[in-house]
Amino acid sequence: MSKAMTEPTSELLYLDDLHIGRRFTSGTHALDERQIVAFAREFDPQPFHTNREAAKGTIFRGLAASGWHTAAITMRLQVDGGLPIAGGLIGLGGEVAWPTATRPNDVLHVESEVVEVVPSRSGRERGAVTMRSETRNQRGEVVQRTTVKLLVPRRSKLG
Amino acid sequence: MSKAMTEPTSELLYLDDLHIGRRFTSGTHALDERQIVAFAREFDPQPFHTNREAAKGTIFRGLAASGWHTAAITMRLQVDGGLPIAGGLIGLGGEVAWPTATRPNDVLHVESEVVEVVPSRSGRERGAVTMRSETRNQRGEVVQRTTVKLLVPRRSKLG
Repeated sequence: MSKAMTEPTSELLYLDDLHIGRRFTSGTHALDERQIVAFAREFDPQPFHTNREAAKGTIFRGLAASGWHTAAITMRLQVDGGLPIAGGLIGLGGEVAWPTATRPNDVLHVESEVVEVVPSRSGRERGAVTMRSETRNQRGEVVQRTTVKLLVPRRSKLG
Repeated sequence: MSKAMTEPTSELLYLDDLHIGRRFTSGTHALDERQIVAFAREFDPQPFHTNREAAKGTIFRGLAASGWHTAAITMRLQVDGGLPIAGGLIGLGGEVAWPTATRPNDVLHVESEVVEVVPSRSGRERGAVTMRSETRNQRGEVVQRTTVKLLVPRRSKLG
């Protein structure tokens, strides 16, 4: 658990609770070379992700995590309280960019902000919320920026 | 080249070789429940990705792969010859959507097409190529659609 900059993570949020500008901060994940290489061997076996020595001669000038590894770690940080949405984090898609390489020994966290709330038109059960998230390393550099549309349920009117 | 659905994968391609409309088809990857659950336990531990029984009561109505797992498998299929770019597949970012859930026992492949070629302005060494890719299951359903900008080197003028 990090020093929560903005929101407690124990309460699960519904569509009704979200408004533009609401912000969330995740805990942290410490990355190391072993994790980078293990992910890359399975999903992105390119020398700049799998081999420290070979990586030096590439455009990355050293080992870097696969962008999809950064995306997967970001998801884990959001599932683990970084984005406490009722019903879970169900993404329909969005945009992703990797402005800075993720490196061994980076400590990552995710900051997210609601940028759009669209109530469902066809039914009352759920709507779509667009979140903009930045994954940052321990120096505050943005290693991933995403804008993702999530399905979010309305709070039940029971009781 | 217009009708060529597929490309040989032995030859590595440079910026000079790529033009709008050039298409590529990857090999296949057979997914199973074990893979889906293993990825989700590490990166996206939500019931609809980790537990077959619990998943039945969710919006997915059964076990589904994390979208980031589908993205990672897509990357692997492209690294393994599905997108034979010289210097490797170095993505700057782009868009991703998951129109259909990826399920246990899906057999995935990726079809990619060049949609934009932008020579580098600052130097002559590399440019950017935008690829649109569709990851399809064995029924031809699109489980992931991406538009990603890649860094691609020019062919060296040596010799």
